[in-house]
Amino acid sequence: MDLQPRDTAPGWKRTGYRIIFESDTRAGMAFDVLLLAIIVLSVGTVMLDSVRSISSQYGALLRGLEWAFTIAFLLEYLARLLVVRRPVAYALSWLGIIDFLATIPALAALVLTGSQYLLAIRTLRLLRMFRIFKLGQFVGEGEFITNALKASRYKIMVFLTSVLTMTIVVGTLMYVVEGGQNGFTSIPKSVYWAVVTVTTVGYGDISPVTILGQTLASLLMILGYAIIAVPTGIVSAQMVAPRGPAQPEPAFKLAVCHVCQAAGHRPDAEFCWRCGERL
Amino acid sequence: MDLQPRDTAPGWKRTGYRIIFESDTRAGMAFDVLLLAIIVLSVGTVMLDSVRSISSQYGALLRGLEWAFTIAFLLEYLARLLVVRRPVAYALSWLGIIDFLATIPALAALVLTGSQYLLAIRTLRLLRMFRIFKLGQFVGEGEFITNALKASRYKIMVFLTSVLTMTIVVGTLMYVVEGGQNGFTSIPKSVYWAVVTVTTVGYGDISPVTILGQTLASLLMILGYAIIAVPTGIVSAQMVAPRGPAQPEPAFKLAVCHVCQAAGHRPDAEFCWRCGERL
Amino acid sequence: MDLQPRDTAPGWKRTGYRIIFESDTRAGMAFDVLLLAIIVLSVGTVMLDSVRSISSQYGALLRGLEWAFTIAFLLEYLARLLVVRRPVAYALSWLGIIDFLATIPALAALVLTGSQYLLAIRTLRLLRMFRIFKLGQFVGEGEFITNALKASRYKIMVFLTSVLTMTIVVGTLMYVVEGGQNGFTSIPKSVYWAVVTVTTVGYGDISPVTILGQTLASLLMILGYAIIAVPTGIVSAQMVAPRGPAQPEPAFKLAVCHVCQAAGHRPDAEFCWRCGERL
Amino acid sequence: MDLQPRDTAPGWKRTGYRIIFESDTRAGMAFDVLLLAIIVLSVGTVMLDSVRSISSQYGALLRGLEWAFTIAFLLEYLARLLVVRRPVAYALSWLGIIDFLATIPALAALVLTGSQYLLAIRTLRLLRMFRIFKLGQFVGEGEFITNALKASRYKIMVFLTSVLTMTIVVGTLMYVVEGGQNGFTSIPKSVYWAVVTVTTVGYGDISPVTILGQTLASLLMILGYAIIAVPTGIVSAQMVAPRGPAQPEPAFKLAVCHVCQAAGHRPDAEFCWRCGERL
Repeated sequence: MDLQPRDTAPGWKRTGYRIIFESDTRAGMAFDVLLLAIIVLSVGTVMLDSVRSISSQYGALLRGLEWAFTIAFLLEYLARLLVVRRPVAYALSWLGIIDFLATIPALAALVLTGSQYLLAIRTLRLLRMFRIFKLGQFVGEGEFITNALKASRYKIMVFLTSVLTMTIVVGTLMYVVEGGQNGFTSIPKSVYWAVVTVTTVGYGDISPVTILGQTLASLLMILGYAIIAVPTGIVSAQMVAPRGPAQPEPAFKLAVCHVCQAAGHRPDAEFCWRCGERL
Repeated sequence: MDLQPRDTAPGWKRTGYRIIFESDTRAGMAFDVLLLAIIVLSVGTVMLDSVRSISSQYGALLRGLEWAFTIAFLLEYLARLLVVRRPVAYALSWLGIIDFLATIPALAALVLTGSQYLLAIRTLRLLRMFRIFKLGQFVGEGEFITNALKASRYKIMVFLTSVLTMTIVVGTLMYVVEGGQNGFTSIPKSVYWAVVTVTTVGYGDISPVTILGQTLASLLMILGYAIIAVPTGIVSAQMVAPRGPAQPEPAFKLAVCHVCQAAGHRPDAEFCWRCGERL
Repeated sequence: MDLQPRDTAPGWKRTGYRIIFESDTRAGMAFDVLLLAIIVLSVGTVMLDSVRSISSQYGALLRGLEWAFTIAFLLEYLARLLVVRRPVAYALSWLGIIDFLATIPALAALVLTGSQYLLAIRTLRLLRMFRIFKLGQFVGEGEFITNALKASRYKIMVFLTSVLTMTIVVGTLMYVVEGGQNGFTSIPKSVYWAVVTVTTVGYGDISPVTILGQTLASLLMILGYAIIAVPTGIVSAQMVAPRGPAQPEPAFKLAVCHVCQAAGHRPDAEFCWRCGERL
Repeated sequence: MDLQPRDTAPGWKRTGYRIIFESDTRAGMAFDVLLLAIIVLSVGTVMLDSVRSISSQYGALLRGLEWAFTIAFLLEYLARLLVVRRPVAYALSWLGIIDFLATIPALAALVLTGSQYLLAIRTLRLLRMFRIFKLGQFVGEGEFITNALKASRYKIMVFLTSVLTMTIVVGTLMYVVEGGQNGFTSIPKSVYWAVVTVTTVGYGDISPVTILGQTLASLLMILGYAIIAVPTGIVSAQMVAPRGPAQPEPAFKLAVCHVCQAAGHRPDAEFCWRCGERL
């Protein structure tokens, strides 16, 4: 996504872009650090406003600050739209959408009470932080993690689907075993309990009471304890050899010999290993 | 297990097989996607039916849907039996048993109240999903995970047996230490507590109260925290070097063809894969 | 430890040894399987006896069974002593001690009520199981795990000491922060809470209530969540390369050049890399 | 930091340094072991003093012991200052600060009640233990762990920042979803809950009650369960190949000596380690 203004763009546009989007100049760095500070303060304000004892005392002040931050974000958003080469491309990019969402909730709160808490979505803007330290180690490290996760995504999806299937089956079993008692009042609740258990979170808001239920739960726990090794192994393997065992090219040809039906030929084999016939 | 009808089978059988069992044709893909949707809806219906507030309002509708799904699964099961080459082999295969079990509970519920919840076993049919995406990455990734687990199975069994022995010993000790009080009312209950603790689930429905009990529990927790490294290490090691330290048998024959000097033959190859000469 | 009787020992001794200690003959295998079954039954009996509702009904039967098992173990222990070459060496070995302890609690219970529960120590005898399957994969796998743990023992001790120090410091801090309230009634209790938290067990029998306490607890949790990577990494690294990075021979010579004081020479260097002087 | 007194320093200073700071002489070893014992006893005393039932009975004795230990630590601290070459450098080093802090709380308690519990900071002195076993394996192992963590620090920071951002966003969502009820009384409390959940600690002091809340919580748990793989993978990868993918600078100079053809020189070597020739 190339947002940088053309060299033929007016000077204020190019200067603005450098300050707002880049951080390799003094002014750009200052802008980014200031922006980060405002984001942190803004999220802090929303959090404090939700604490009843603080809100009742300093409510007016906090609400005033929230409006000030909202206006600042709005202005910043408009400025970003102004200086980029293709405003629509920016507005539809991930960062653009987050920047936009950071301004909406306060406006929406004029109409709908409660939506101001969604201001906390501004926290996502903290991810900009990594951009600021772009010149440092962070981008590379972030990419290393992201790439390892991306390369493992099919494995992780297979794993999560299996775990999910397991929680549904075990959750239903527990609903039947505990007889709809002891918190296992419906299958969805029992599935929720199974997720709480298999992930080893274990709130204890729902826990089995019957002998059979506790035995089943023990099995689920030990399973959850053992299979946490799977995602860990996947990501570890990926990080140890980022390009190694992830996409193993097929070790054998998929074709079958038309004479002796033998399978398992080398990918580049031209003759059957069993009967010597041309494949 | 070769279920595919012979080439001499009637046309409708071969076409039916392609549609129901394969997903490489348009109709086959459509069938599988439709089946998946019905499975998801069916499981959702059972779950909703177990929620009292929903069941009391829409009970009749939900029960009607369940019957519709059951009939659909029954017809599908019969169709599968019809088109495969060896119906008995299919009926006794894992997938065949799951397909059969998906139809039973609703019928059993006519006789035995409560058994309709076992319909949730239909969730297992979701595993078919991986078959549908067979052409994609999923089968390979699933096999990668399964193989790593399979290769580690002896190590994991040794590990789990050790953990289980430990929980029995510590559970009994806690029963003696806490004097049958504070939830540790019997050895099986104490062993259940030990499992909850060593797997770091920690419900808190039973927790030690005496100083000695808490000290012993702390030791168990730290042990559980440290030894989770063992299954993780096992699976990681397996995934890093899938064929490495576990089964060190050579993947290929070490011999070289005396005619074309090609290497990399299968261990049991009798003919060269490149020139077809007898090795 | 060579327990096998000499070739000059009487025939019954050698035959007895083969049956009792080995499992490569038919009789030896039968003996071991029978022993395993008795151990499992014996542990099960003790567990059932601790459940009040069962004990009040079948108490006499269970106690009778326990005595039968105890006598069986006693006879077995004496038989083992009889057939080995050096009875003292066997009696002082790990397995010998466990075999002995399996008989003691029932006898002690004649004098001291409650000690019969220590019969559960018999569970440790289950570890014999691995001996029975000696011919299979298990011994090798067990050794693989044990060796990896043994090679990592210093690292794991350093890690556990660090974690323990951390829990004591954080536990004390929490005692001060929560003001001896909300379950944090003494420093040992607070340390117990810190262990429960850092290991991610999280019973919830004690949990922070003040804002400062919850903040501190959050930090401890995130720390515990992140550092679980350490033992896992240690064991994984050990298992991936069982002999690799564990005992890294010093990469550099420890000596210092007597002329220019330069350090970091190769282990086999004879001349200083900086000034060229003979070391 | 070179604390060792010059060779020209008076004899008592050099002897004192050897005893207090080193542990390679008999007296030095004895001093260190004695110090360790006092540290352990001192921490134990503070812990016992915080238990009400013990404090009310043995309070005077415990307080007396605390003073004795404090005086011992004070004398030790002064002795350390006396024998080192540069007292200020020592006083400002990590170990110097910890040594100093070990004496302060008892003195502060004369003025401020409650501060005596901070004596537990003495626990940090236990880390000296590793110095005592310096000649053994421990320093190397500790360094191995520390280096692996140090090399992973950017990755771990990126990971923790992402997790933190996630907990703030999810915490706020839960505050809105649960409507400020069921323990989710403010955003900071909800964020605390999110941390408790994502780290799989799961106290259960706050847990979702609404269907939507439980669904959201389930997602967070599964996420937390899956992403624990990330720090584990990072540290594992680091430990498997301590110098591998992170800092790929060559450990040795690639050049070869033109006289003796020896390879494996330090990157900054100017002379051959085998023949002493200028490279």
